[in-house]
Amino acid sequence: MTDSTDFRPEARNPRGFQDRRARDLAAERSILEAVSHVYERYGFERLETPAFEFADALGKFLPDSDRPNEGVFALQDDDEQWMALRYDLTAPLARFAAQTWETLPKPFRRYAYGPVWRNEKPGPGRFREFIQCDADTVGSDRPEADAEIVAMAVDGLRAAGLPAGAAVMKINSRKLLNGLLAQAKIDDPAQRLAVLRAADKLDRLGEKGVRDLLGKGRMDESGAYTPGAQIPPPAVDAVMAFLAAAKATRAATLEALSPVVSGSAEGAEGLEDLARIDAALKGMGVSEDDARFDPAVVRGLEYYTGAVYEAELIAPGAERVSLGSVGGGGRYDDLVARFTGTRVPATGFSFGVSRLAYALTTYEWLQGEAKAGLRGPVVVAVFDQALMGEYFAVAAELRAAGVPAEVYLGSSGLKAQMKYADRRLSPAVVIIGGDEAANGTATVKDLDLGRELAGRVADNEAWRQERPGQQTVSRADLAAVVGRIVHGG
Amino acid sequence: MTDSTDFRPEARNPRGFQDRRARDLAAERSILEAVSHVYERYGFERLETPAFEFADALGKFLPDSDRPNEGVFALQDDDEQWMALRYDLTAPLARFAAQTWETLPKPFRRYAYGPVWRNEKPGPGRFREFIQCDADTVGSDRPEADAEIVAMAVDGLRAAGLPAGAAVMKINSRKLLNGLLAQAKIDDPAQRLAVLRAADKLDRLGEKGVRDLLGKGRMDESGAYTPGAQIPPPAVDAVMAFLAAAKATRAATLEALSPVVSGSAEGAEGLEDLARIDAALKGMGVSEDDARFDPAVVRGLEYYTGAVYEAELIAPGAERVSLGSVGGGGRYDDLVARFTGTRVPATGFSFGVSRLAYALTTYEWLQGEAKAGLRGPVVVAVFDQALMGEYFAVAAELRAAGVPAEVYLGSSGLKAQMKYADRRLSPAVVIIGGDEAANGTATVKDLDLGRELAGRVADNEAWRQERPGQQTVSRADLAAVVGRIVHGG
Repeated sequence: MTDSTDFRPEARNPRGFQDRRARDLAAERSILEAVSHVYERYGFERLETPAFEFADALGKFLPDSDRPNEGVFALQDDDEQWMALRYDLTAPLARFAAQTWETLPKPFRRYAYGPVWRNEKPGPGRFREFIQCDADTVGSDRPEADAEIVAMAVDGLRAAGLPAGAAVMKINSRKLLNGLLAQAKIDDPAQRLAVLRAADKLDRLGEKGVRDLLGKGRMDESGAYTPGAQIPPPAVDAVMAFLAAAKATRAATLEALSPVVSGSAEGAEGLEDLARIDAALKGMGVSEDDARFDPAVVRGLEYYTGAVYEAELIAPGAERVSLGSVGGGGRYDDLVARFTGTRVPATGFSFGVSRLAYALTTYEWLQGEAKAGLRGPVVVAVFDQALMGEYFAVAAELRAAGVPAEVYLGSSGLKAQMKYADRRLSPAVVIIGGDEAANGTATVKDLDLGRELAGRVADNEAWRQERPGQQTVSRADLAAVVGRIVHGG
Repeated sequence: MTDSTDFRPEARNPRGFQDRRARDLAAERSILEAVSHVYERYGFERLETPAFEFADALGKFLPDSDRPNEGVFALQDDDEQWMALRYDLTAPLARFAAQTWETLPKPFRRYAYGPVWRNEKPGPGRFREFIQCDADTVGSDRPEADAEIVAMAVDGLRAAGLPAGAAVMKINSRKLLNGLLAQAKIDDPAQRLAVLRAADKLDRLGEKGVRDLLGKGRMDESGAYTPGAQIPPPAVDAVMAFLAAAKATRAATLEALSPVVSGSAEGAEGLEDLARIDAALKGMGVSEDDARFDPAVVRGLEYYTGAVYEAELIAPGAERVSLGSVGGGGRYDDLVARFTGTRVPATGFSFGVSRLAYALTTYEWLQGEAKAGLRGPVVVAVFDQALMGEYFAVAAELRAAGVPAEVYLGSSGLKAQMKYADRRLSPAVVIIGGDEAANGTATVKDLDLGRELAGRVADNEAWRQERPGQQTVSRADLAAVVGRIVHGG
């Protein structure tokens, strides 16, 4: 660590990279632990691939020979090969599966979480390093594999701390919309793509906007014009009816969709897939409130080949206001093919970890250890150097009782120690001076209660006498008293 | 994911980077979880700093303007500044502490774990990406802060799964050896450094080798000659006595050392520090077997300024064979000074995560979930597509009973499914066909028992009839029976 030079670097972070302390990490860690546990219960195994991949393995961002770190962080290894930091967890899974396919048990279920890096322009809330958490099943074309992913996401959201009703998994299949278009004799690929893009904007533009985009085109408020898909009015009506076809139960939705899509082979296949997903979800006890079919879910349709799903977060309250997506995924087939040329069916889900963490914190849904992790430890104050051994014994006793605790190890007096405990968000301070030690007692300050009571005591002098939130207890009862303050009850 | 080109990259890892599956990760994850939990009980907060630091903040590896990624992985950001991936967790702590010092509660206790990257030549067991796990207290010069780190390391090793007696924390202070040398009037800095280096080789060279290095010099078996420290014979005796001064208790060791070091101010200070560490360890109930004073612990002495500690791993068995270090640390003062010029005392410990994980696996010390994580899930075989809903219900029931379980989602028959379960190291397979479904029963195959019994059945035909490890149970008892197979009892 020692440099002999007098050079003093400035202590700062590179742009778009952040330090995170315990309070910033509590929700994210709770999510990752809870979700990992759920994934393992479902037989998904953890896989950790390295931060670096060869740049050519990343696919989307193939290296430009002059400037290969467009979009990714890339550097040239000693042997002149370009390596890049992973920008997601799917490309490394693709590489791993292709590399080890012969020896893997198939289907291969894996989950992974960890940082990914994007060499993009940072902004508020937009970082160049963030956490992803994915689960994928590789090598199964059964719709039941999709159902399993959906059930696992439902369980994962619940385990992460979301109360019932706070999220819903919305499921669709791209085969349905394809079937609808086939049935309406809309075969031109450009027209079909325009329909998909229009349907994807229902949330943002509303029914009128989507109708315009399906038909003649749309002029927005700024006067900018988007050409329409130019499909005939009856087809527009059919698409709009399709997008609004979600019913109270999955079976009712399928029934409503049947007339508009089952006339085409692909549409009928999509209905059959969803019926099998429904049966598997029923088998696993996934309720209609937790997972529903919604034809309006249109995500990354150029990428997905079958079922698609999205986790929608709902704000607390009777209005059930949507807070947008906290994860999504679907079925795709190009995972291993990029490397080997052989198509391998796959399906997966990715949690929106940051958004979910934000929601858990905002709505105070964190419980147990995660919630406790937002607080500091109980501080055992140092009053008398001769009692150091006793202070350490108290801290050890509290820890053994499940209470995070520490002895103050700075060099300041009692007042500064109280301020330290306050800044650490400690729930309580234990004070043992000569008198207490002689009497076999200890003084406990409940800092939350103290703050609360102090607000009610008008007079400074009265406050000093009453010492709100402060009590003297027998040394033998100390751990129990502090435990009650920290854990409640 | 889709590339329009026909280019097919080869699926492979960059040199020195590895993929790790669940079985490779089980021990490491168990250590990190257990140790984090212990650290939090001690009031240490988790800190996550980014993968990238500005290269000038990394100190040791200041960028060479031509080739700044000597030793680290470095690249130039858009604004031409050099960034590098962190090579340890101490340099980022230094940068963070310097950057936020005014607003931090002091002393600042933090722990951290995560990958670090070294741009070095990879070799067998030597990777360019690996996990570190550190805890440091910044801003306390109290020896009690060292004691706390030692107690936490002892608790951490135990929580990670090491049985009592499998590790010992050995503590020393560099002030003691300095004191000894002062008392022996060895003041020449080069000579003192030569003595430290000789002392550090006791493990490897034995007493005779160290004596030679303290005196005239040493010729090794290859004929290579190392010049000696050239200290007089009585001083050689004093150093050798010092290195061998460890006694059965910490207090006895201090007593034995007193005559040889307390004549110098620094030696007396070192004794006082260790006495205070002893008192704090006693307060926290850290036994003499778990933490002892050992003057022969000499680590990185150019770096540390006070107490140093090392966790030594002991092989099971009465011989108590040392397996070397599984972690170490000590007190150092240059943490924040590199950036601000102000000296800030600090002390910390770093777990040797890979070595500890290797030991946990080798000696089968993993317990509970970590041990279970080495196995695959229970596989619910698919016999009849019409029973899919029932298979998913069984899997959900097993998960609810705490048993990882999955429905087989490939497209192969029962024989291939059994092979799949075997490759996944599944403890059991559940088979429900038409008969079982009609009878309200299920067939359970205990795969471990099956393998064990199969070894004892000589005749193939007999094996087919006996079906070792296979039983038919009532559907209502299924979860309980499988739970017993998986969890024992």
